[in-house]
Amino acid sequence: MRIGGKHRRTVWLAEDGRTVLTFDQTRLPHELPVLTLERLADSTHAIRAMKVRGAPLIGAVAAYGVALAMRADPSDAALDEACATLGATRPTAVNLRWALERMRTVLAPLAPGEREARAYAEAAAICEEDVAVNRAIGERGLPLIEAAARRKRRGEPVNILTHCNAGWLATIDWGTATAPIYLAHRAGIAVHVWVDETRPRNQGAAITAFELGQEGVPHTVIADNAGGHLMRRGMVDLCLVGTDRVAANGDVANKIGTYLKALAAFDNGVPFYVALPSSTIDWRLADGSAIPIEERAGEELALVSGRTRDGRIETVRITPDGSPCGNWAFDVTPARLVTAFVTERGVCRASEAGLLSLYPERAAA
Amino acid sequence: MRIGGKHRRTVWLAEDGRTVLTFDQTRLPHELPVLTLERLADSTHAIRAMKVRGAPLIGAVAAYGVALAMRADPSDAALDEACATLGATRPTAVNLRWALERMRTVLAPLAPGEREARAYAEAAAICEEDVAVNRAIGERGLPLIEAAARRKRRGEPVNILTHCNAGWLATIDWGTATAPIYLAHRAGIAVHVWVDETRPRNQGAAITAFELGQEGVPHTVIADNAGGHLMRRGMVDLCLVGTDRVAANGDVANKIGTYLKALAAFDNGVPFYVALPSSTIDWRLADGSAIPIEERAGEELALVSGRTRDGRIETVRITPDGSPCGNWAFDVTPARLVTAFVTERGVCRASEAGLLSLYPERAAA
Repeated sequence: MRIGGKHRRTVWLAEDGRTVLTFDQTRLPHELPVLTLERLADSTHAIRAMKVRGAPLIGAVAAYGVALAMRADPSDAALDEACATLGATRPTAVNLRWALERMRTVLAPLAPGEREARAYAEAAAICEEDVAVNRAIGERGLPLIEAAARRKRRGEPVNILTHCNAGWLATIDWGTATAPIYLAHRAGIAVHVWVDETRPRNQGAAITAFELGQEGVPHTVIADNAGGHLMRRGMVDLCLVGTDRVAANGDVANKIGTYLKALAAFDNGVPFYVALPSSTIDWRLADGSAIPIEERAGEELALVSGRTRDGRIETVRITPDGSPCGNWAFDVTPARLVTAFVTERGVCRASEAGLLSLYPERAAA
Repeated sequence: MRIGGKHRRTVWLAEDGRTVLTFDQTRLPHELPVLTLERLADSTHAIRAMKVRGAPLIGAVAAYGVALAMRADPSDAALDEACATLGATRPTAVNLRWALERMRTVLAPLAPGEREARAYAEAAAICEEDVAVNRAIGERGLPLIEAAARRKRRGEPVNILTHCNAGWLATIDWGTATAPIYLAHRAGIAVHVWVDETRPRNQGAAITAFELGQEGVPHTVIADNAGGHLMRRGMVDLCLVGTDRVAANGDVANKIGTYLKALAAFDNGVPFYVALPSSTIDWRLADGSAIPIEERAGEELALVSGRTRDGRIETVRITPDGSPCGNWAFDVTPARLVTAFVTERGVCRASEAGLLSLYPERAAA
């Protein structure tokens, strides 16, 4: 997608073919400086300090971290240490461990002299696969937006509500929930996105709005409180969100507040779609009740960061001293409220039967 | 209610019996300085600059503004000008116009020499009536909390979710939705309040949390996104909110986001109560669809104020330059999602029949 009018990905190589470049996302939406990763320690720091975020992007930066480590020292010991160090940066990130395991499996059998080139190639492959999966989600989801467009009067945009950031800055390109939107916009379909602010970390206001603005997609940032009112007033044609984990019965764990929007969509007959790569389906979980919900520090709610009038990034406290804050990061939306899933293989009902229709190999498992 | 351990109201007179004192609420939750009103212009400024807010409090400060005007000049011209100036401060505030009309009706027939004393007496009466109504709402609502307490295990608090600020700082004392909570707390019932942050103006995080903290009521500030998750997990025993306007069929206009909480309460079998003085019922409105929803400046969402680490009050921007913000101030919760109303006359179903059972004089009207 575009930043400053130029097409970019979230990870790329410098002209030397070895230095890894990415964006420091911590100052969004106000700044997005390029971050240069020359050593393993640079990658480790970028992940730990959350300068890069989003499961697919973290996995890719970790894979390139292994490549940087192999460039400096392709020994077995260095490979072990790189995987261990990177693996410890974000303990709960599933993609991170998956990417590191893949790198180790590919590199360990090789002679040290062959490892550097292979590591860069494998990291690049991880990125290409992510782009292809997200692009496919976009193509599978595009007809849903096209169908909504056919129901609009000429010149009226399709109004799409999204929550949090399931966008390209969390992946390598396209994003998941944003992919159909970007494809629709490029296809000349008039779309307008209601961007939930997404308290307490403001990923909608800070990241999704930034992405859409840079790509030229019309959008409006709204309080998380507003979506129900907009749906009652007929101002939302469809909801489209991402997910962190889907249970085998179709229950959806996603950013806190998703459930409230799904309730409002159901109450008003607005389609509620969830976009996901199939790697997000946790086939071992019978339903959403078993999904653990992370409780994070209350400071994330109490403290808000942004840009002052004179251009500094500043943090302010919005709650009284002595008032505790509760901060649950995710909620579970029951499958009954989800109209359909959009995966890289196609669109299906949010149910066990629906998922198995797209992934028949799982029925045998 | 208490501030700094001392019982206070939101408006009171200095020892001279003429100077009006109130609080500057604009720096909440971090500071609550006393504001001295000596002249009509002080009252006008306090209302226009939103140093005082909440319909009942605005009405009371306006009434005392008329008294201050009569103190300086009790002529007919001065009375007219005071009412006109004060009436223009907040064009949509119904209580403001009601209080000014009441003052004018009482004062206009009097000789100028009698007006000052009568104006102070009438303003005081407006305040006393507000306190009595809210106290009555508290007493009518208390049994609902007592009943919830009887269903809890020994030592477990009744968990009450509230949205926005329907608290005593918006009134003279007690508040509306908070009145039953304060009475329950004083009666020794263990209560714990989930305080919705209430974006975009953060009245929950800034005002309700402050009030509850000063009164010693256990509470936790949560993102507006969190309530649905808490209800699914059985962590909310009842919801209790205020309202800006109730239609004759029981539809409820309240701060944006109320509808989403009512949906979640309904989906999880959690009682959803709305507290209101009967003056909030708009008998002329058949249902909520006719209630106009104010759309306010997007800057209220884009800019967040709070206290910096070094103690300054600072404002920061959290959205990208060039991303528009939408800011609807209220939504309408359909009566079907409301378990009951709590008014100064008692508890009733959220329906025309329910309201008429408490206000039979309206059936004849």
